Amino acid sequence: MPQSLSSPLAQSRSPSPATPTMTRPLTIAIVGATGAVGAELIACLERRAFPVGELRLFASPRSAGKTLTFRGAPVMIQALEETSFAGVDVAFFSAGASLSRHYGPLAVAAGAWVVDNSSAFRMDADTPLVVPEVNGWRLGETPGRLVANPNCVAAIAAVVLAPLHARRLIVRLVGSTYQAASGAGAAAMAELRDATAAALAGETYAPQVMAHPYAFNLFSHDAGIDPETGYNGEELKVMAELRRLLGAADLPASFTCIRVPVLRAHAMALTVRFAEPVSVDDARAWLAEAPGVRLVDDREANHFPMPGEASGRDDVLVGRIRTDLSDPSGRSLSLFIAGDQLLKGAALNAVQIAESLVEAGQV
Amino acid sequence: MPQSLSSPLAQSRSPSPATPTMTRPLTIAIVGATGAVGAELIACLERRAFPVGELRLFASPRSAGKTLTFRGAPVMIQALEETSFAGVDVAFFSAGASLSRHYGPLAVAAGAWVVDNSSAFRMDADTPLVVPEVNGWRLGETPGRLVANPNCVAAIAAVVLAPLHARRLIVRLVGSTYQAASGAGAAAMAELRDATAAALAGETYAPQVMAHPYAFNLFSHDAGIDPETGYNGEELKVMAELRRLLGAADLPASFTCIRVPVLRAHAMALTVRFAEPVSVDDARAWLAEAPGVRLVDDREANHFPMPGEASGRDDVLVGRIRTDLSDPSGRSLSLFIAGDQLLKGAALNAVQIAESLVEAGQV
Repeated sequence: MPQSLSSPLAQSRSPSPATPTMTRPLTIAIVGATGAVGAELIACLERRAFPVGELRLFASPRSAGKTLTFRGAPVMIQALEETSFAGVDVAFFSAGASLSRHYGPLAVAAGAWVVDNSSAFRMDADTPLVVPEVNGWRLGETPGRLVANPNCVAAIAAVVLAPLHARRLIVRLVGSTYQAASGAGAAAMAELRDATAAALAGETYAPQVMAHPYAFNLFSHDAGIDPETGYNGEELKVMAELRRLLGAADLPASFTCIRVPVLRAHAMALTVRFAEPVSVDDARAWLAEAPGVRLVDDREANHFPMPGEASGRDDVLVGRIRTDLSDPSGRSLSLFIAGDQLLKGAALNAVQIAESLVEAGQV
Repeated sequence: MPQSLSSPLAQSRSPSPATPTMTRPLTIAIVGATGAVGAELIACLERRAFPVGELRLFASPRSAGKTLTFRGAPVMIQALEETSFAGVDVAFFSAGASLSRHYGPLAVAAGAWVVDNSSAFRMDADTPLVVPEVNGWRLGETPGRLVANPNCVAAIAAVVLAPLHARRLIVRLVGSTYQAASGAGAAAMAELRDATAAALAGETYAPQVMAHPYAFNLFSHDAGIDPETGYNGEELKVMAELRRLLGAADLPASFTCIRVPVLRAHAMALTVRFAEPVSVDDARAWLAEAPGVRLVDDREANHFPMPGEASGRDDVLVGRIRTDLSDPSGRSLSLFIAGDQLLKGAALNAVQIAESLVEAGQV
């Protein structure tokens, strides 16, 4: 295992971008370049000075021929073909699970590393599911050049839970989410704006993207309900992926996933039971030094994590840290966190995975 | 104890409004008539055909002389004075705790029943804290003609929890709230609209009512944080009042209270542990027949409680009923509920308390 992919706690607070001079310019592909995550992938590569030599952007045929801007220059969008990955070093996929299932293995066969933002390979035993601060060491163990980027809620929660779990075993987890429109894509963000503008104007608006009216309203996540458990697909994904990310295969967990009228950052209330008591002071100290985490827990000023402050930020914000009074054993903490769904919940984490691969000399 | 104030489960599904012909026309006072709850109190009295003979509306001196409409006729708003309650049968207070503390006892001394919507008397041992469907029998035990209307979150949650608690003892309760602007008053609702309109227009908006930007954002409830426990005042109120309403003085409970950009109905995710296992089918059956509750739990259609559908409705909506997978004992259920903060969370419950007093012949 490369040294740079060692335990997250040994890493620097904010994983540093790969230095362009250290590595040859890479050929990068983005599949799903016109989506909300695609736009953030392009922005992250640019902002973090990722060593991009050539950038290939792929989207559906109706976008082919249009251009997007990277480092001030136009890049033409191409229609995806089976031969599109020749010479690609890293391909970021963010265009849905079925497309990833078909084209991901083709990209790997063409010699590329694939960082897949869909759910296609997240529970595949041979594919590492990675948040670099949490389990970046798994990148040293991947046989197939395919890495899964977690569900946004799971990634954001894992950044905060992992540094606690590393000190005191988490034995039960209950979460309620406040999920932004961005998780359902750019069209959902537009619908939130349009539906809200209509409501303010006293006009009716028929939902086109979401299943329910979105203006000043919230609703259970629209993923299908598992008839056996009553949990929806999003909740089951979050629970399963958090178990994988934390290396806690049997962790009893329950999530309630709710879509709220917020544009791009997810928040969640977490109740975490540990195998032994954890003091608020200890938890705060551990989180204050954890990579990718920013403590926002000012009780006097009533200043705690908010989506508005998490939007556009790399760090996941955590606050409202307190001993949970519903657990008489004193072994539970309550937390409230917020993280940018498009950044740590998607594009940033994908680029950080690629950076880790570059730093480890695997790409 | 009057027969009509017996156990909630013996009541009809929707407590029927008092029939005007059964009772003499009453003199009703509303203190705080121009607020969001005041407006709903007036509407509830009218809609439910409460036997109002004379309606006296009180507000701050700057509103005195203006009029509001009741049953199609204008009613002039008066400035509140210590002698305002002469001849009043029922006075609804909704103008803050300090005003209730001063004028509430004066109204009682003048011979009125007081239904107080503030927090002033909610934890007073001599004052019943009442949700008619939950503990209406307590109205038969009140020595002081003063009744406290619960906190909106507590009232809405209690309507759903009480019919479960009546069958299987609740032994632990965890809640995360999604609270609407209305809970902070009409000015907060206006600020949500104004701040959102500004955001959509790309303009800046400086918060004037809320402590944080409200457009497409959410934040921890602004009640002060108790330094000892880390819970905020709203959370501690909800936890204490739910214990009183359920008659479960030692119930371990924890709430996280979050303000969301929704106009007038509160939602919440509840995790409820019982002393013994409760099946989803049993819980659903008990809730389906509970007064003031409407089951909205259509897994196939992904149709569950939403603030948009709870707004303007008397019933509290409940759905997402499932066995909580984080509790390996199988003794916990997860629920998602939504109820109108201004109706069951405030004005409707207050009017229902008055109706119960009329039906019992106490007024």
